[in-house]
Amino acid sequence: MDIQLLLTGNEIMSGDTVDSNSAMMAQRLASLGLTVQRKITVGDDSALLERELANMTREADLVIVNGGLGPTIDDLTAEILATVADLPIAEHPEALAHLEQWCAKRNLTLNAANRKQALLPAGCTLIPNETGSAVGFSLEVNDCLVLCTPGVPSELSHMLEHVLDLLRQRLGNPQQHNILRLQTFGLGESSAQQIISDGVPDWPPAVDLGFRAGAPQMEIKLTVTNDDDLALQQACRHQLEDLFGDHIIGEGDTLLAERVLELLVERGKTLATAESCTGGLIASMLTRIAGSSRGFHAGFVTYDNDIKHRVLGVPEALLEEHGAVSEPVVVAMAEGAMQRAGADYSIAVSGIAGPGGGSNEKPVGTVWLAWGSPENIETCCLNWPVERTLFQTMVAAAGLDMIRRTLLGLDSQPRYFDQRRVRAGAAQ
Amino acid sequence: MDIQLLLTGNEIMSGDTVDSNSAMMAQRLASLGLTVQRKITVGDDSALLERELANMTREADLVIVNGGLGPTIDDLTAEILATVADLPIAEHPEALAHLEQWCAKRNLTLNAANRKQALLPAGCTLIPNETGSAVGFSLEVNDCLVLCTPGVPSELSHMLEHVLDLLRQRLGNPQQHNILRLQTFGLGESSAQQIISDGVPDWPPAVDLGFRAGAPQMEIKLTVTNDDDLALQQACRHQLEDLFGDHIIGEGDTLLAERVLELLVERGKTLATAESCTGGLIASMLTRIAGSSRGFHAGFVTYDNDIKHRVLGVPEALLEEHGAVSEPVVVAMAEGAMQRAGADYSIAVSGIAGPGGGSNEKPVGTVWLAWGSPENIETCCLNWPVERTLFQTMVAAAGLDMIRRTLLGLDSQPRYFDQRRVRAGAAQ
Repeated sequence: MDIQLLLTGNEIMSGDTVDSNSAMMAQRLASLGLTVQRKITVGDDSALLERELANMTREADLVIVNGGLGPTIDDLTAEILATVADLPIAEHPEALAHLEQWCAKRNLTLNAANRKQALLPAGCTLIPNETGSAVGFSLEVNDCLVLCTPGVPSELSHMLEHVLDLLRQRLGNPQQHNILRLQTFGLGESSAQQIISDGVPDWPPAVDLGFRAGAPQMEIKLTVTNDDDLALQQACRHQLEDLFGDHIIGEGDTLLAERVLELLVERGKTLATAESCTGGLIASMLTRIAGSSRGFHAGFVTYDNDIKHRVLGVPEALLEEHGAVSEPVVVAMAEGAMQRAGADYSIAVSGIAGPGGGSNEKPVGTVWLAWGSPENIETCCLNWPVERTLFQTMVAAAGLDMIRRTLLGLDSQPRYFDQRRVRAGAAQ
Repeated sequence: MDIQLLLTGNEIMSGDTVDSNSAMMAQRLASLGLTVQRKITVGDDSALLERELANMTREADLVIVNGGLGPTIDDLTAEILATVADLPIAEHPEALAHLEQWCAKRNLTLNAANRKQALLPAGCTLIPNETGSAVGFSLEVNDCLVLCTPGVPSELSHMLEHVLDLLRQRLGNPQQHNILRLQTFGLGESSAQQIISDGVPDWPPAVDLGFRAGAPQMEIKLTVTNDDDLALQQACRHQLEDLFGDHIIGEGDTLLAERVLELLVERGKTLATAESCTGGLIASMLTRIAGSSRGFHAGFVTYDNDIKHRVLGVPEALLEEHGAVSEPVVVAMAEGAMQRAGADYSIAVSGIAGPGGGSNEKPVGTVWLAWGSPENIETCCLNWPVERTLFQTMVAAAGLDMIRRTLLGLDSQPRYFDQRRVRAGAAQ
């Protein structure tokens, strides 16, 4: 099935908006085993849109148009589709009813601009828009199915459910892609690929292996297109678990912070944070998760020596003797945070995020981490010389990862420590 | 000048990667007054790429190809361009020298895969890649200039400087677009547009007005294409300053946190934060800025009543009587943070980020803010019923905005307070 996307919008052409809609569409279509062949983006220009849409309908089996459904004069999709299909534009009663309801709910009067959104190519079929004013619509042109969808991402996301239903009906029972996603931390794409090639030389071709590298996590994706291969998919998953072990955080969309909170809640424990160079990012990653208050109660951002002393009780002598980026200081921070918060576990970080502040002995990218419980605090010094915000992201994630490992009772060291370690600590 | 972009990559077609490169290219081209007419994306497929590139070179004056320069078998750009131009592929000595240098710097041996990156269409001209192994290259085909650039965003960003130089030379002295960007907080796109339409009915057509709504800031862009209109651009800027006043944070890329730190440093003052529902995000926004330690020393994330009491000294009686999301508690948090950190100013927030935790009296989205100095703490209760992370982002920004206003000695209330306010406080 030849599927093409036509995206319209001056704000996308100018680069003022980064298009994430086409990625959303491609991923949702992939769940039906459908792949997008080609996508074209042009601005809100009648002549350009008409040319592309006419060409696409001659060539493709399915065209999804995105954008241009709104009330302004720049919104051209209905008009262009009518021209290409050689049909008149007419007020669509269902679309008008939707607009009237939409306005009534918001105590608005239906004005001419809004009413324009009911003017659609004659004979088209509506696609409901559950959140916005502009309905979607579908039409067959030149044996090609054209689906018109809104540019607002949240509206598109809802409408895609209807689009997928429509495609499922049309395709009979399409070959579903079964996608299993594993979230990892501490692995790079190329080294992961190498480890798999070496470890599983006879990887089954029926299981498609994919990587999606992000900061801080990397996703490994196992896709099978045939239900008969589900057992094979599970076998591959077990092989990955053998190869990567505790570098796998969880399935689906699991975030590191989410997994840490889950483990804390399961054990009825709480965590406190003491952050210098990450400046509140660990606390923020935790509290982004709904329900985080069940495992996280207190965070300290101690961005200054005096504050490390006043707020966390780090002895001034330690700060003077060893400096803020040192093992004794980061251990005292971890202890101070647990004690002051009455927490069971803590993470403490102190490092040099840059671009300034480095020295020969402690260059930019140097960071001491301490983590554990009052009975057992572990430490490590890493060097991660990357741009400031990426450094903060990776170090915050490393802190969360160490607590995850502690909560799981793992005593193995993660792979990334080997590459980044300056010095392993063995404090307390 | 008809400019078209050809983007290649299976990871873009599948939606695993969101393409931000084309937005980057469009914005950089805009600085020369150039606009992109059309962009096409296809996967790493020889037949598809060849068809699109051949069509584009017949139609456009400039084609920029992005992606497909790397060492793997999927990287097809050099080969496709050679086919379209009907030229042989040859090892390019300069490209080979670049690869040798690149490997030597990294203590790597030049292997066959890497060496493939020196195989380019005969007669093409190199475009330097300062950060990566794959050079870019340019070639005239069918009176169309084709520029091939790398898909890695950081490499592309550097290479675009060379591309712009090349275009400047080619275009003689192109009509530069002078773009003035103003950063605002607390304005929506449509209301800003309305205020401008009402306030400046005779807006000069020579000054193009644009908006770029983000969370939390909105950018207003004034573009003129003729140096004679620079005075007019300045006049428009002054009119915007009259209309929006202190909702304008600064010029260019200025971030709220950056402006707050600048004002603190100018005055030799420090700020402390006491965060409940924003969970460290305000501290994190501040410490993302290099040099933030000059104005920000301490942040407290007190995500629990007991911690508000233990760490910030909020009286237990206040918490019991009024609840954590209340004016007396948020004032006590602000006071406690200043006192414990020895800071001159503080921001405190306590609210209900959701999705759970709301009540009839205090629904999800309710938040109390307190800000000021030991002598004068102000408060406000807002209702911002949006998704959890957006709520955290907007509330954190509102807190920073109130400190910015305090530091500037503004006593006017921002517009967004009118829309969001539940109750104005007048504590202390």
